[in-house]
Amino acid sequence: MLQSRFDLTAINVFIVSTVEVLKTMAQIEAKKGTPFIREKDQISGDISAVISIVSENRSGSMAISFSSACYLDIISKMLGEECKEINSENADAAAELCNQIFGMTKKKLNEIGYKIQPAIPSVICGPNHTIKHMKVGPCVAVKFHTAKGDFTIEAILSDLQKK
Amino acid sequence: MLQSRFDLTAINVFIVSTVEVLKTMAQIEAKKGTPFIREKDQISGDISAVISIVSENRSGSMAISFSSACYLDIISKMLGEECKEINSENADAAAELCNQIFGMTKKKLNEIGYKIQPAIPSVICGPNHTIKHMKVGPCVAVKFHTAKGDFTIEAILSDLQKK
Repeated sequence: MLQSRFDLTAINVFIVSTVEVLKTMAQIEAKKGTPFIREKDQISGDISAVISIVSENRSGSMAISFSSACYLDIISKMLGEECKEINSENADAAAELCNQIFGMTKKKLNEIGYKIQPAIPSVICGPNHTIKHMKVGPCVAVKFHTAKGDFTIEAILSDLQKK
Repeated sequence: MLQSRFDLTAINVFIVSTVEVLKTMAQIEAKKGTPFIREKDQISGDISAVISIVSENRSGSMAISFSSACYLDIISKMLGEECKEINSENADAAAELCNQIFGMTKKKLNEIGYKIQPAIPSVICGPNHTIKHMKVGPCVAVKFHTAKGDFTIEAILSDLQKK
């Protein structure tokens, strides 16, 4: 069973951190959907941020992907001005959101011994691109609903011993 | 001067590793262009792999981006069969190439004290998507030419003390 191998503690911390960061940075109430194991299809969106998860004994990656409408609503609230299109400048906010979610998750997980190290996200722009993680374990995805559309986070994380 | 702050040792090792991996895995002679500091525009391609660079005292990220024609030629040679379109299955080869280049670079740089840790790449698909790294320092890019088109690697890497 793939499910049994996945790190539920980590995904729960990711979810809580995501909701918290969206609320703090953009005053947005993101309602979480049910986490699911992503099998064949891939996370897709118009703007995404990805980051590798590196620790002494675990390895993986995390992505957050937004539809254009959802992203523009979030950054309009973050920046306090209406953003009508994704551009090179406002794309940085995707990295910032990813950074905050990753940072909060890292802090909480490190308090219980994960030893996740700091890392730098990259931002991907392009209509309906997909992101595929290397299969080091099951990939868990959670869709979040906001008033202006959906965004998704997903993470893959495994013990290095399993490699 | 941005140039003076960039880690030339690291980019040179990336270049040598890229040429070596392409030769070994796909029997492709990739000719390197002149490395340049990427200022405003962003790396773009139809399929890319990204990975975070994490060590005790440095942080950054690396991306490799292929045009569709170039990628299909490379994977046709890697897999020993003609690939006519990028799909979910053959996209894994981008992660594998990134992994090999990153792994070889890591090994060489760690021999001179970089302490870069293992990490897992993610693969992005989508016509003409762009990738933007978080600005932790100058971003150095190198375009490689093959008989069937170009691909680009770029990396950003800085001392954590500078953050």
